[in-house]
Amino acid sequence: MKRVLIIGAGGVGRVVAHKCAQNEDVFSDIWLASRTKSKCDQIALEVREKTGRKIETAAVDADNVPELVELIKQVKPFMIINVALPYQDLTIMDACLETGVHYLDTANYEPLDEAKFEYSWQWAYRERFEKAGLMALLGSGFDPGVTNVFSAYMQKHHFDSMDYVDILDCNGGDHGYAFATNFNPEINIREVTSNGRYFENGEWVETAPMQFKKQFDFEQVGPKNMYLLYHEEMESLSVNLKGVKRMRFWMTFGDAYLKHLEVFRNIGLDSIEPIMFGDREIVPIQFLKALLPDPASLGPRTVGKTNIGVIVKGFKDGKPLSRYIYNICDHQECYKETNAQGVSYTTGVPAMIGAMMMIQGHWMKAGVYNMEEFDPDPFMAALNTHGLPWTDIETDIDVDALPE
Amino acid sequence: MKRVLIIGAGGVGRVVAHKCAQNEDVFSDIWLASRTKSKCDQIALEVREKTGRKIETAAVDADNVPELVELIKQVKPFMIINVALPYQDLTIMDACLETGVHYLDTANYEPLDEAKFEYSWQWAYRERFEKAGLMALLGSGFDPGVTNVFSAYMQKHHFDSMDYVDILDCNGGDHGYAFATNFNPEINIREVTSNGRYFENGEWVETAPMQFKKQFDFEQVGPKNMYLLYHEEMESLSVNLKGVKRMRFWMTFGDAYLKHLEVFRNIGLDSIEPIMFGDREIVPIQFLKALLPDPASLGPRTVGKTNIGVIVKGFKDGKPLSRYIYNICDHQECYKETNAQGVSYTTGVPAMIGAMMMIQGHWMKAGVYNMEEFDPDPFMAALNTHGLPWTDIETDIDVDALPE
Repeated sequence: MKRVLIIGAGGVGRVVAHKCAQNEDVFSDIWLASRTKSKCDQIALEVREKTGRKIETAAVDADNVPELVELIKQVKPFMIINVALPYQDLTIMDACLETGVHYLDTANYEPLDEAKFEYSWQWAYRERFEKAGLMALLGSGFDPGVTNVFSAYMQKHHFDSMDYVDILDCNGGDHGYAFATNFNPEINIREVTSNGRYFENGEWVETAPMQFKKQFDFEQVGPKNMYLLYHEEMESLSVNLKGVKRMRFWMTFGDAYLKHLEVFRNIGLDSIEPIMFGDREIVPIQFLKALLPDPASLGPRTVGKTNIGVIVKGFKDGKPLSRYIYNICDHQECYKETNAQGVSYTTGVPAMIGAMMMIQGHWMKAGVYNMEEFDPDPFMAALNTHGLPWTDIETDIDVDALPE
Repeated sequence: MKRVLIIGAGGVGRVVAHKCAQNEDVFSDIWLASRTKSKCDQIALEVREKTGRKIETAAVDADNVPELVELIKQVKPFMIINVALPYQDLTIMDACLETGVHYLDTANYEPLDEAKFEYSWQWAYRERFEKAGLMALLGSGFDPGVTNVFSAYMQKHHFDSMDYVDILDCNGGDHGYAFATNFNPEINIREVTSNGRYFENGEWVETAPMQFKKQFDFEQVGPKNMYLLYHEEMESLSVNLKGVKRMRFWMTFGDAYLKHLEVFRNIGLDSIEPIMFGDREIVPIQFLKALLPDPASLGPRTVGKTNIGVIVKGFKDGKPLSRYIYNICDHQECYKETNAQGVSYTTGVPAMIGAMMMIQGHWMKAGVYNMEEFDPDPFMAALNTHGLPWTDIETDIDVDALPE
C-alpha cells in the first residue's frame, strides 16, 4: 500500500482518481493536483460520492520544476501518475529525480512548438533514473499501453515469430454533434493531419495523411473505415519486439469527421500560424477550439463502444498462425462508473494498473521503460478485473485482404 | 450628356466607372466617391489608362445624409448611380430628395441587423419622388435588373399569357480556391442559408434552404445543379407581370461550395452571434471573412462563364409557347475590359445602361420604379451593344421535367 500523486485533472485524471480510489488495498492515499485546484476539488467530490474515499487536492503548475518539487516534498508519494499535458513530461520527470519518487505517464513528450512526438527525449533520462534507483514507466494508457502489453503477451504465449503486427483502434462513439473532438482539438487535429508512417523491414515508411484506408467490421461496433496513421507505441515496439517484418497502426474516422477536417484545412481554420483580425493576431485553430464543444462536455451524451486490439500474423512450431486480442468498452458504462466517457476511461484504467504493477512489485526496476519490457501476465490479469476485459482468439482476418 | 456621381468603389463600382467612361456621348463628367478615397483613385487611374478619360474622386460616408448632401451640392450631378452597400440605399435616396437629383441602384435596401430584404422601404419613397419631380430606378443590375427586362420583353413581344416563369442564374466561374465567395461573404452566405420562396397562384410559398434542386445543362457552361432560392426581382415581378401562375428563381452551386457552407453551419462559423474568445467577443462570420480570400482578388484568376436567363411557358394566339432569353458572359473577357470578373461586370453594365436610359430620356418619369415598368426595347438594344448580348429562342426545355 502506497501513496500516489496524480497530476492532471482532465478526463483521464478523473478516471485515474476513481480507479485508484476503488483499490484501497493498493493506493493507501491519493493526492490530485493540477493548475486549477477547483477541477481537482470537483473530482474529489465525485470520488467521495461514489467510493466514500477522501482525495487530497493541490494546485501546481506542471511546467515549473521548483513548484513541482515543493509539492512532491510536501506530499511524499511513492510515485507520480502523470496525466497532465504531453508538453509537461520532462519537467515532471526532473522533479521526480530531484525528490526521489517513481514516475508513470500515458503519452510521450512532445514539444509545444512543433508537431513531433517521439521517445528520444524521455529515453535520454534512462541513466539518471537507473543511478537514482527510480523507475519511470512510459506510455501506460491504452494505445500506447495496453496495445504494447497485448503484443508482449502474443510474443510470450502464442508465437515463435511475429511477422505482421496491425494495431486497430476504433471509436464507435456518437456524441450527437456534427463535429467535436474527444480530447484537446489542437492535439487531435494535429495527429490526424500529419503524415502517416509504418515500420517495414527495419525501416520507417512515410505516407501522405490518410493515404491508406481499409474497411473493417469491428465486433459490437460495425463496419468502419480505418486509416493508416503513425502512433507512438510503434516506436518502442519496433525496438523491443523481435523479428517483426511489418507493423502498422489503423484508426477509424467517419466520413463526416474527415469532411470537417478537409474544410478546416481548405480555409486555414486548422492553422497554427496567426492571422490578423482587426488590430490583433489570432491563431485560427485556437478560434476553432473556442467554437467547438468542450471535450469534457461529451461524456454524458456519448453512446456506443470502442474496440481496440492487435492482430498478429506469424508462425508457431513451424505453422502459420494469426491471432487477435482486443477490448470492447461501452461509453455509457464508463460514464456511469467514473463520470467520463470511453476515451478517457480506456486511458485512465491502464494508468492505474501500471501504478498498481509498480506498487505491487510485479514491475519494478530502476530505469526508464516501455510497457512491453515487462511480464505482460499480471497486467493482463488486472485488465480483466478492473474494467477492460479482453478477448484472445485465433483469427482468419487478413488485414491486407480487407476492402479499401 | 450629363454628369453622374457613382457611389461605391467595389467590383461593381469599378465596372460602372469603366463603362460610363466608354460612353462619353452620354456621360459628360464622371465622379466616383466611396468611404475610402484611395480605392476611387485607383479605379480612376485604371480608367484613365484604358480610356484616356479623367474621373473625379471624393471620400464620402454613405451612411451620413448631411455628408452626402454636401458632396452632391458640390458635384451637382444629374443623377446618382448607387453601387455602395444595400444598407445605404435609404440614406442616399434621402440625400437625392434633399438635393434634387435622380437616383439608381442595383440591389434593394436591407437593414444591417436583420436578414430581410424587400422593396417596401424604398417603395415608400414613391410619393416624395413624384412630388419632387425626381426619378428613382431600383434594381438595375443583372438579377434584379436584366432578368426583369427580359421578362418585360417576353410579355411585350411574345406572349398573351405568361403562366410559368423560371429565372436561371448560373455562375460557372472557377477561381481555383477550394472555397471563396464572389462578393462580401457575409451577404453571400446569408443569402444561401436562408429559406427559399417562390410565387404561386398569387401567394408566396416558403421552402427550406436548398429544398428544391434540378440539374440543368447550361449552354457554354455545362451541366450544373441549381437550387430554388428567393431572389428580390420576384417581389416586383409578382406585382408588375400580369397573370403569372408561378414564378421561381434558381441558382447553381457546386457540391464543394455547399459542403463548405454545411461545415460552417455545423460548427457555427457562419453565425452572426458573437462568442467569447479569451477576453473579448468575436462574431464568427467576421472571423471567417478574415480567413477567406478577398473577393476583389478573384478577378485575375477566375475563368469560365456565367449564363443567366429567363424561361417562360405560356400562350400566344391560343397556342402553347415556351421561350428562353439568356446572356452568356466570360469572366476573363470581363477582366480584360474592366479589371473585374463576370459577377461584377454583369451587375455594373446594366447599372450604366439604366443611367443611360434615364439620361437619354427613354426611361424618365417622376416616382420610384422597377425595371419592368418601362419599355424594354431600348434597354435590350443597349445590352447588345455594351457587352451583354442576349439570345432569344423558342425552347422545348421544361424546368419541371428536369432531373433532380
